[in-house]
Amino acid sequence: MPNPITADRRHYEDISIGESIALGPRKITKRDIIAFASEFDPFPFHLDEKAAKQSLLGGLAASGWQTGALSLRMLVDEFLSKIASMGGLGFTNLKWKKPVMKNDTISGTATITSLRRSKTHPEMAIITIALDMRNQKGQQVMTLNLANLVEVRNPGAPIPEDAHEELAL
Amino acid sequence: MPNPITADRRHYEDISIGESIALGPRKITKRDIIAFASEFDPFPFHLDEKAAKQSLLGGLAASGWQTGALSLRMLVDEFLSKIASMGGLGFTNLKWKKPVMKNDTISGTATITSLRRSKTHPEMAIITIALDMRNQKGQQVMTLNLANLVEVRNPGAPIPEDAHEELAL
Repeated sequence: MPNPITADRRHYEDISIGESIALGPRKITKRDIIAFASEFDPFPFHLDEKAAKQSLLGGLAASGWQTGALSLRMLVDEFLSKIASMGGLGFTNLKWKKPVMKNDTISGTATITSLRRSKTHPEMAIITIALDMRNQKGQQVMTLNLANLVEVRNPGAPIPEDAHEELAL
Repeated sequence: MPNPITADRRHYEDISIGESIALGPRKITKRDIIAFASEFDPFPFHLDEKAAKQSLLGGLAASGWQTGALSLRMLVDEFLSKIASMGGLGFTNLKWKKPVMKNDTISGTATITSLRRSKTHPEMAIITIALDMRNQKGQQVMTLNLANLVEVRNPGAPIPEDAHEELAL
């Protein structure tokens, strides 16, 4: 029986490899940076302007995990909340290319890089997404590749040969 | 000139490959889960108990990114704040093995998996750390590998042959 919550959302069958989605923009304030860092990443260069100026980062910079979490939020808003998502599996190759500084505005692009049925769970497919996040100057600040589960609308349809062996990333 | 903030902390020279550090424990409450998800990962299975019961997760579960951010906080408390850290480079192979459910307690182990001087920046070294996070039953909930910069106390010392070519992960 179709899931009533996700019935109207895009399923495996409605998504294409190569599709790309614009994310953001979102400005990161001093207040945002300090609030997140106080909870999760309490380093002087994320909490204190003076200490930050003396650090390698050269000024108050967001925790890289905050850039990650904010990018996730953009991906939820623009894509994951519109598909019949069943949750995330993990991600890989997360690289912080440049610090996100106070008052930077980040935006990005999510690109569907693969989409495959699960061999073991016919009702599930695995979608992989590449994120390319940039600051207001167009400079890359973070890249990562993420894997997520999405519902298959017609689980009875034959599973292609190239389906995943298992759900692991 | 030595950095006065980090002079007393452990440097490259004081850290060994294979060293392991206990992380946590930390209990995750319903309130923690909803607060984080509201900001970064607003899915019904992270926000609402009823919806969560009908989802693949089977109950209210923390955003996987929250497990990541809380693990980072543990790593800062137990290790990164005690070394002359110069910031993170990124991480890879993040896998969510099992959901973290309401009132689960997570703890873990961080293991130093590599430690190398930078070839291009004699004052920096790259340390890689494997995180193994578990719930109160000892079940693995998340693993990941992380790369961080650490200061070299004696940058004039010869750089070994196996030093990193560059700072990229």
